[in-house]
Amino acid sequence: MDYGLFFTYLAACGAAAATGAFFSPGDWYKTIRKPDWTPPDWLFPVAWTTLYLCMSLAAMRIAQSGDVRAPQALGFWAVQITLNALWSPVFFGLRRMRAALVVVSLLWVAVALTLVAFFRIDWIAGLLFVPYIAWVSTATALNAAVLRRNPEMA
Amino acid sequence: MDYGLFFTYLAACGAAAATGAFFSPGDWYKTIRKPDWTPPDWLFPVAWTTLYLCMSLAAMRIAQSGDVRAPQALGFWAVQITLNALWSPVFFGLRRMRAALVVVSLLWVAVALTLVAFFRIDWIAGLLFVPYIAWVSTATALNAAVLRRNPEMA
Repeated sequence: MDYGLFFTYLAACGAAAATGAFFSPGDWYKTIRKPDWTPPDWLFPVAWTTLYLCMSLAAMRIAQSGDVRAPQALGFWAVQITLNALWSPVFFGLRRMRAALVVVSLLWVAVALTLVAFFRIDWIAGLLFVPYIAWVSTATALNAAVLRRNPEMA
Repeated sequence: MDYGLFFTYLAACGAAAATGAFFSPGDWYKTIRKPDWTPPDWLFPVAWTTLYLCMSLAAMRIAQSGDVRAPQALGFWAVQITLNALWSPVFFGLRRMRAALVVVSLLWVAVALTLVAFFRIDWIAGLLFVPYIAWVSTATALNAAVLRRNPEMA
């Protein structure tokens, strides 16, 4: 563990997590039509806490690796955390589901690029991104499903 | 120039810039009380475009440097770009000026840490951050001044 590196990358996650706190679901989210397979509300903060810890650990391992490709991989990491911060304000703040679907799709691409770049350098760092791509895949499908069921909120 | 690195870091800036496009000043900003020294409206997009290009160039140079301290410096860069993305939604979206002042103050700290870490590795990369810290200092002072003049919007 390199705590300086870990907490630096975790701080970026904290800023992204703050958008989720500032722009939380609230009553509006309760009232919109959602698919049967929508994860229960309690799972979201649990999942995100786990994922932020995993992605900070993964970034720390890449940063420690000394690999010449690390700065490119950490660049992808910076793209995904910024897009991560963008989604909540667009979905819960502006309630623009179509724009939010574009954001979460771009996030999926950025997470996939990061995952592949991390795997090439350190397989443990790559593995730490597997739950994240799974969750963002679910989030993308959920955003699309919610958009289809609430076309008036596109 | 390493275009792969440059455009990766510029993509993160694009995601941060998108929050400024999604949460733009609008009529509300026109009506709030502002200090005499508030920069003219046209200057903001000009300044941010310049700053995003400078900070992407700086990150590219650090990523290319091969310096062992680069992953830590790029971690600070990731923190500042995520906080950068957070400010517009909090100020223009939620209109929570006090929370936005906390965000912009944290952004100032993250930009200062990045600037110092960059200077230690490559003085040109450090210089490319000087306009940014100057602008964020102004933005912090402006946020504080606007909060003082519009206490009902704290």
